[in-house]
Amino acid sequence: MAALHRTIVVGGVAAGMSAATRLRRNDEQRHIVVLERGSHVSFANCGLPYHLGGVIEERDDLLLQTPESLAARFGLDVRTRHEVVEIDRERRTVLVRALETGDEYEEAYDELVLATGARAVRPPFPGAELAHTLRDLGDMDAILAALEGSAETPSRSAVVVGAGFIGIELAENLTRRGLDVVLVEREAQVLPPLDVEMAVLVDERLRAHGVEVRTSASVTRVEPGTVTLDDETRLPADLVVTAVGVVPETGLAEKAGLDLGPRGGIVVDAQQRTSDPAVFAVGDVAVKRDALTGTGTLVPLAQTANRQGRLVADVITGRDVTAPAVLGTAVVGAFGTTAAMVGWSEKRLRAEGRQVRVIHTHPSDHAGYYPGARTMALKLLVDPPTDAILGAQGVGEAGVDKRIDVIATAMRGGLRASDLADLELAYAPQYGSAKDPVNMLGMVADNLAAGITDTVQWYEVGAEARDGATVVDVRSAGEYAGGSLPGALNVPLDELRDRHVELPAGRLVVTCAVGQRGHTAARLLRQLGRDDVANLDGGYRTWSRVAGI
Amino acid sequence: MAALHRTIVVGGVAAGMSAATRLRRNDEQRHIVVLERGSHVSFANCGLPYHLGGVIEERDDLLLQTPESLAARFGLDVRTRHEVVEIDRERRTVLVRALETGDEYEEAYDELVLATGARAVRPPFPGAELAHTLRDLGDMDAILAALEGSAETPSRSAVVVGAGFIGIELAENLTRRGLDVVLVEREAQVLPPLDVEMAVLVDERLRAHGVEVRTSASVTRVEPGTVTLDDETRLPADLVVTAVGVVPETGLAEKAGLDLGPRGGIVVDAQQRTSDPAVFAVGDVAVKRDALTGTGTLVPLAQTANRQGRLVADVITGRDVTAPAVLGTAVVGAFGTTAAMVGWSEKRLRAEGRQVRVIHTHPSDHAGYYPGARTMALKLLVDPPTDAILGAQGVGEAGVDKRIDVIATAMRGGLRASDLADLELAYAPQYGSAKDPVNMLGMVADNLAAGITDTVQWYEVGAEARDGATVVDVRSAGEYAGGSLPGALNVPLDELRDRHVELPAGRLVVTCAVGQRGHTAARLLRQLGRDDVANLDGGYRTWSRVAGI
Repeated sequence: MAALHRTIVVGGVAAGMSAATRLRRNDEQRHIVVLERGSHVSFANCGLPYHLGGVIEERDDLLLQTPESLAARFGLDVRTRHEVVEIDRERRTVLVRALETGDEYEEAYDELVLATGARAVRPPFPGAELAHTLRDLGDMDAILAALEGSAETPSRSAVVVGAGFIGIELAENLTRRGLDVVLVEREAQVLPPLDVEMAVLVDERLRAHGVEVRTSASVTRVEPGTVTLDDETRLPADLVVTAVGVVPETGLAEKAGLDLGPRGGIVVDAQQRTSDPAVFAVGDVAVKRDALTGTGTLVPLAQTANRQGRLVADVITGRDVTAPAVLGTAVVGAFGTTAAMVGWSEKRLRAEGRQVRVIHTHPSDHAGYYPGARTMALKLLVDPPTDAILGAQGVGEAGVDKRIDVIATAMRGGLRASDLADLELAYAPQYGSAKDPVNMLGMVADNLAAGITDTVQWYEVGAEARDGATVVDVRSAGEYAGGSLPGALNVPLDELRDRHVELPAGRLVVTCAVGQRGHTAARLLRQLGRDDVANLDGGYRTWSRVAGI
Repeated sequence: MAALHRTIVVGGVAAGMSAATRLRRNDEQRHIVVLERGSHVSFANCGLPYHLGGVIEERDDLLLQTPESLAARFGLDVRTRHEVVEIDRERRTVLVRALETGDEYEEAYDELVLATGARAVRPPFPGAELAHTLRDLGDMDAILAALEGSAETPSRSAVVVGAGFIGIELAENLTRRGLDVVLVEREAQVLPPLDVEMAVLVDERLRAHGVEVRTSASVTRVEPGTVTLDDETRLPADLVVTAVGVVPETGLAEKAGLDLGPRGGIVVDAQQRTSDPAVFAVGDVAVKRDALTGTGTLVPLAQTANRQGRLVADVITGRDVTAPAVLGTAVVGAFGTTAAMVGWSEKRLRAEGRQVRVIHTHPSDHAGYYPGARTMALKLLVDPPTDAILGAQGVGEAGVDKRIDVIATAMRGGLRASDLADLELAYAPQYGSAKDPVNMLGMVADNLAAGITDTVQWYEVGAEARDGATVVDVRSAGEYAGGSLPGALNVPLDELRDRHVELPAGRLVVTCAVGQRGHTAARLLRQLGRDDVANLDGGYRTWSRVAGI
């Protein structure tokens, strides 16, 4: 009888454990070894900030599986605190160090799956070693211990460095715990993956709940109890946590001579195979294929990690399946507001020199006539020649995750932006609108694709005005009195049909609250013979949030 | 100068008003007349039950537009209480009756848009004229007046006939108002568009909140204060409301000799054109094209009505656009639970003789380790040869509308059921799971499509057992003790690898709580040489809800 087939999985969290359990379900006759450097497998890393904040009260709730439970159910040989220190690809063995004892031993494999994940970037400033990061339970425990402080001086102040997704969650949860939190971000906005006029809505919410947000600010050094910024501001900091991104944990792969991508990460084919056909890589450590460009990208997200783990198990057991390209859908909550995105941002598209059609709306999460409706901001990015959806972003108190999920699904299905108008989404007044926010995005996209309307963006209208365009605010006199664009004339929409002759010749830019009345006004003016009219996309609401930027 | 082009729209609510306003935005140089038989245009008909229940406090909140506001903004000639009584297609005129005065007059048209909607079916039992229906504000006002009753005897009891979407909303809102409500349904379940094992979850919720649900019951007569059922039960009923469906309001079209569909409704082409090229029909009165079969169907839903209104305006003003086929996505809330569906139900598919692959799951709306997670029931219907998604249903307290919207979008995008596994849906623990409920449906679909697992349905397992299959419950001994299938053996999953030899030869059906452990057990047994193993789809949870049915 032949020896059992042996598969070794390095890393026992999302991707690694998905691979190991699926492998077992696919093949009972196989030795499956999971080697995890840390103390825990299959823990809920996305829950770590929420245990810090006391939302998830029990630490044990974060432990989804143990080596014992995995042995009982899946016959897995799971070894925590066992680090793989070397791969001998020639002999198909790994050298393992048992961290408790320091002993080293070899394990042979037929297939090796690298699911080593990503590690927190350690920022370069002096004293960075005094700062915490938050990637695993050990990190969380260390922060909890630091928060206790000494008996007489528990921590009162925290500085969070980096206002990305994890940084926002840290700021919220440390505030929830009663600390005074300063959130420091090198970029000019929080949530750098989003565009600034969307991220500013999260910024406002953070400030409203007491977080001191410092954008365009860098840390120059950390000393015990103090963080110093590049403008020499000294911030009191009983606790410092950095969340400035992650990098794939490729040390082992690199040492073994596997191909790496230009920005790090292990290069894999569509079946997660590395440059060595017996070695696979999945999850945060692997280079993904971007859905927009087809080129390599790094997307450290749980859904993709789990999915790749399942896929690699199928590949190893002989199924002909391939991994799809990734869109990178992500969401974060902050003090009751939700920010979500999918695909590329406008700034990323423009940085790459791509043409983009931009749509901003401010719809309600459900019908306005039903109590409790809350306004969200949505943004859709469209490829002008093809009407393809390139990305979307949303910020608001309710219904944002639903709309981004719908758009992510539309992107996966290859629907065009205009097709969003036809989606049949579940409508009763407490859930949505007969014209759902996603439908409305599609209608605007259709109008733009068909040339029925033209729009200008919030960052273009100032230059338009300086170049001689007349800005016409078609809101009511009362709304206009509450604030408008500099130099805007006020002609309420319902009077425009009679009063359009008052408007000066030349280029007109119409604006209203959110862009809807402006669209009607632009259509009216165009048909009254004004052929150089554009509507301010997103209206006064989008513009006013960022007018100071 | 040529006379202005004239378009007449008959009906001024969802489809009609969408058509009229879009027509104006498309073409300022056109006379647009909207003739509405009722007293109001553009009112929120989906909100009517919620004003009855006091959720929408102000009646005025249901009035979205008035003839005056539509004249000011869109230059529309809107006439309420004006009924079109005849169409002279030869002369392209309509005969209009002004209901206030009884005067009749003719209006000429270049295009006529019929948006006459649907009317409530009046059931055939004696005394039906004593019952209310709820289609417009007048109906709602009449119910409100009836609820007041006389000063000494306000209404205390209500019978709602018909437990479809509107019937459920009526039952909830009349209960909310303090009435004792009996809900009578001729079919054996509430919410007949759903499958019974899903609808029963709504039934339970209705009963838990005091609604007396009487299924498989017909009304034989209504007398003042009393409703009599076919089993001679006499129900006290200060108020009776029937909600037994709607039929297209085709009288006018029929009289004019326009083609009608076999089940009613005006037949239209993909541009909403009737058999007379100058006459269009949109919304509830028009026959739609079913997305599954491509054949005619009636789907009286607001989203489609609005969308067709917009489309017909584009067609009339010269755009080459066509209406998509319809999926019929719908949702209803009842006492904090949500039921939603898209596409076809299992019973409809089976009634049409179609093969169908069925998947039941019971996922949480968000990660179980984050507080407040609530379980929902999901069902996915798949076409076995093509893996196409035929329909989906969901019932639960949170996150159901999101999942059905995602699946509706996937259906529109032509994604296969297995593709749902790869959707990148926004994940943080308060919003979903790394493997979202929709992803999990896709994984099960993939397992079934690939032949990795076999399942049996809740209504098949009894016959399987009678035919000699052994039912193996792989839950813990404690769970098993709390109730299991008749005759089931208990071998907990974690002991199965050692104890499988105890199982009798022949067919095995494994079962667990929701189907997940059962899947692992079925895989294990199959690889241990048991080649006739199936997993009970949806597990004990699905089965136990309907075991008595």
